[in-house]
Amino acid sequence: MLYSQDTIAAISTPHGNGGIGIIRISGEEAFRIAAEIFVGKKKFDEIKTHTINYGKIINPETGEILDEVLLSKMKKPNTFTREDVVEINCHGGTVVLKNILELVLKKGARIAEPGEFTKRAFLNGRLDLSQAEAVIDLINAKTSESSKAAMNQLEGKLSVKLKEARKKLIEVLAHIEVTVDYPEHDIEEITGEKVYSEIKDIREKLNNIIKGFEKGRIIREGVNAVIVGRPNVGKSSLLNELTGKNRAIVTDIPGTTRDIIEEYINLNGVPVRIIDTAGIRETDDLVEKIGVEKTNKELESADLIIMMIDSYKGIEKEDTEILDKVKDKKVIVILNKIDLANEEKLAEIESKIEDKKVIRMSLKQGIGTDELADAVVELFVKGEVILNNEVIITNVRHKNLIDKAIESIDYAINAYKSGMPLDMITIDIVNSAQYLGEITGESVSEDVMNEIFSRFCLGK
Amino acid sequence: MLYSQDTIAAISTPHGNGGIGIIRISGEEAFRIAAEIFVGKKKFDEIKTHTINYGKIINPETGEILDEVLLSKMKKPNTFTREDVVEINCHGGTVVLKNILELVLKKGARIAEPGEFTKRAFLNGRLDLSQAEAVIDLINAKTSESSKAAMNQLEGKLSVKLKEARKKLIEVLAHIEVTVDYPEHDIEEITGEKVYSEIKDIREKLNNIIKGFEKGRIIREGVNAVIVGRPNVGKSSLLNELTGKNRAIVTDIPGTTRDIIEEYINLNGVPVRIIDTAGIRETDDLVEKIGVEKTNKELESADLIIMMIDSYKGIEKEDTEILDKVKDKKVIVILNKIDLANEEKLAEIESKIEDKKVIRMSLKQGIGTDELADAVVELFVKGEVILNNEVIITNVRHKNLIDKAIESIDYAINAYKSGMPLDMITIDIVNSAQYLGEITGESVSEDVMNEIFSRFCLGK
Repeated sequence: MLYSQDTIAAISTPHGNGGIGIIRISGEEAFRIAAEIFVGKKKFDEIKTHTINYGKIINPETGEILDEVLLSKMKKPNTFTREDVVEINCHGGTVVLKNILELVLKKGARIAEPGEFTKRAFLNGRLDLSQAEAVIDLINAKTSESSKAAMNQLEGKLSVKLKEARKKLIEVLAHIEVTVDYPEHDIEEITGEKVYSEIKDIREKLNNIIKGFEKGRIIREGVNAVIVGRPNVGKSSLLNELTGKNRAIVTDIPGTTRDIIEEYINLNGVPVRIIDTAGIRETDDLVEKIGVEKTNKELESADLIIMMIDSYKGIEKEDTEILDKVKDKKVIVILNKIDLANEEKLAEIESKIEDKKVIRMSLKQGIGTDELADAVVELFVKGEVILNNEVIITNVRHKNLIDKAIESIDYAINAYKSGMPLDMITIDIVNSAQYLGEITGESVSEDVMNEIFSRFCLGK
Repeated sequence: MLYSQDTIAAISTPHGNGGIGIIRISGEEAFRIAAEIFVGKKKFDEIKTHTINYGKIINPETGEILDEVLLSKMKKPNTFTREDVVEINCHGGTVVLKNILELVLKKGARIAEPGEFTKRAFLNGRLDLSQAEAVIDLINAKTSESSKAAMNQLEGKLSVKLKEARKKLIEVLAHIEVTVDYPEHDIEEITGEKVYSEIKDIREKLNNIIKGFEKGRIIREGVNAVIVGRPNVGKSSLLNELTGKNRAIVTDIPGTTRDIIEEYINLNGVPVRIIDTAGIRETDDLVEKIGVEKTNKELESADLIIMMIDSYKGIEKEDTEILDKVKDKKVIVILNKIDLANEEKLAEIESKIEDKKVIRMSLKQGIGTDELADAVVELFVKGEVILNNEVIITNVRHKNLIDKAIESIDYAINAYKSGMPLDMITIDIVNSAQYLGEITGESVSEDVMNEIFSRFCLGK
């Protein structure tokens, strides 16, 4: 059954002047509205579904032509929202788009809220909730890998696994219920063993999904990296080298001043995030500030510390202090300026930092930056899950819910082991299924849903 | 005959993340490329023209799914470029769009130059040159009126008039030629009179088109306004009132620093341009700088001076100086703070500036700003041409060429009047026809054409 609502409209292309702009209308009234404002070769009503039609958008009251357009008519249910959809493909000028949108609204549509088209797709069963979340991840993807992970999620690979696990939990519940209601049909001990083995199996599978999360999060959100080292060790040069060769995307962070710019360096598909200007300049002077609270905080919140050492000078007192401070973090040590040091010296330095990944580098001679990229990938991504084939969790909401689902199963397992009757553990299994349902949207509160869609952009 | 070229592709939606992004492909290879990367219910080759098709963009080498898309197939000649066109309507993420575009390019398309789709539409006869220019005007339109003017031009209303005039010039030429080659068939004096009357008629018509130019230019480019007056007369308050109520569009000027922002105030459809921050702050202090070269320059280049006078204080020496300085410009005088002055005082002030448009205003009481908007419209637009029905010239290139066409006709008329033989004036008529042809593109040089299309945005 379709979830039927009023008719919504929005400009679905990014803000700004461009070659093409699109206004999307969805809902019961979409076709009536289009029929009133579109004049083409055929009457709108005679246009077939899923066709593109050249014509004009005309204000029927004034006769004014607003634009020449290509109009797409798409009849439900084979549409994104599962409602009747019209897309008006017009010249991408701000005024043109605004005027056409205003006319559409005047004719009875309501302006869509952010994410409302996707929300309808979800409510009408076109997508489950984790797929809907993948839509916005796909739009915001910062590297091809994050795009790929979002695409896999949009394809429903995660959903399939979670729905399977949830279905099994519900089967277990049914089984327990039968045993409790009709004990004459079964022997509780046998059922107990079966339930125990089944939920352990589900737990194992959920655990396997969770395993990929660290990689998934990194792929989706990027690695927060800080470069540290004494003055003149080559931090700025390294940064320039990396950004110059691998600059991925520079984005303004919404809601902040223009001065703060997030910069992503794409290292073999792993987005590495560096806060531009202020951030970088501060980490440049990091050594001079050692002991300062702020510096500690930066090091603490970083996923990766890239520690640079001058091969010619060797490890000095300040280097030891830094190494000590970051001993529990993921660290890559770079021996820079190897062109100035001999093998003996290098080996001596390396012997002092045996427990860390060390890369020999000479920025001057162009040696070592590729190895750095490989090391970052190795450290954060490799050997866990291979994209394209495997499910990968990228979303912290999903991670937390799966964690809770596992925790509930653990309660059940412990209760069973301590000899509790079977009907006492059903509540834990119900909870576990509930948590999984919140990911796919099979059981999700209005609030959670609204919170998710509010993060979408307008017109999606 | 179609002008056949290689296959081009571009992202046609504005830069940035949005709900929908479009990649457009045009040319001989567009269908082959789409067939290789699109997987839908039907094979691409079996898809009918001008239909929308749900499916996936898949890299055929790696099998990787790049996005779920709606693909539009449009077979020539019923397309914008008159070539085979494919539009891929995908999720509007920067990485997704980039990856799909790269795949399209890898499959044999070339990245389109700015305006190249429209250039092909022109070269293939879908649009004439003035219509093509209207496309970019429509995209850049700053008010509904500028959008409407561009739409009229896109509809070909200007072209029709110019082509008609050009055709008549060519008929006149043919007539002269016959007379000169076969004098036995005609009496030169009779032909002379006829030619004279005909070119005078064409001249008249061209003159009528030119008349609307000032309005057209204002509608397209906006009025450059400067607000002047003594300190504390209320300039900033007026500006805030106008921008607060009527702010239209704020644009970064390409190629300048971020600090300079063009601000357009929309006064009843007339875009009024004010240079923000620096500009405004300087005009604020204008009185104190009187006599300075820079101030004179600002006043000189302005289309409109809005001169504010304090009703309570009356006209002071500095006011008289300003009024003298701008006596040859379009000026609107505002008597502000009328709540502080009586009728006698106001009448006295008005008697001293009888030759100017005067508006009584009290920003404090909210009186007079609507009248200002009406006055601006009256001063720059009214009583000349009515939009929707009439042809309006908005483009200075067109204006200059029509001026030259008229000038050439004037040469011919003068030559005829001074008794020159008919065949001596053919060169002037040829020139006149040539100038008109440069507007519609019937005769235009490669350089001019390239210069025009280089001002387009990418993907158009």
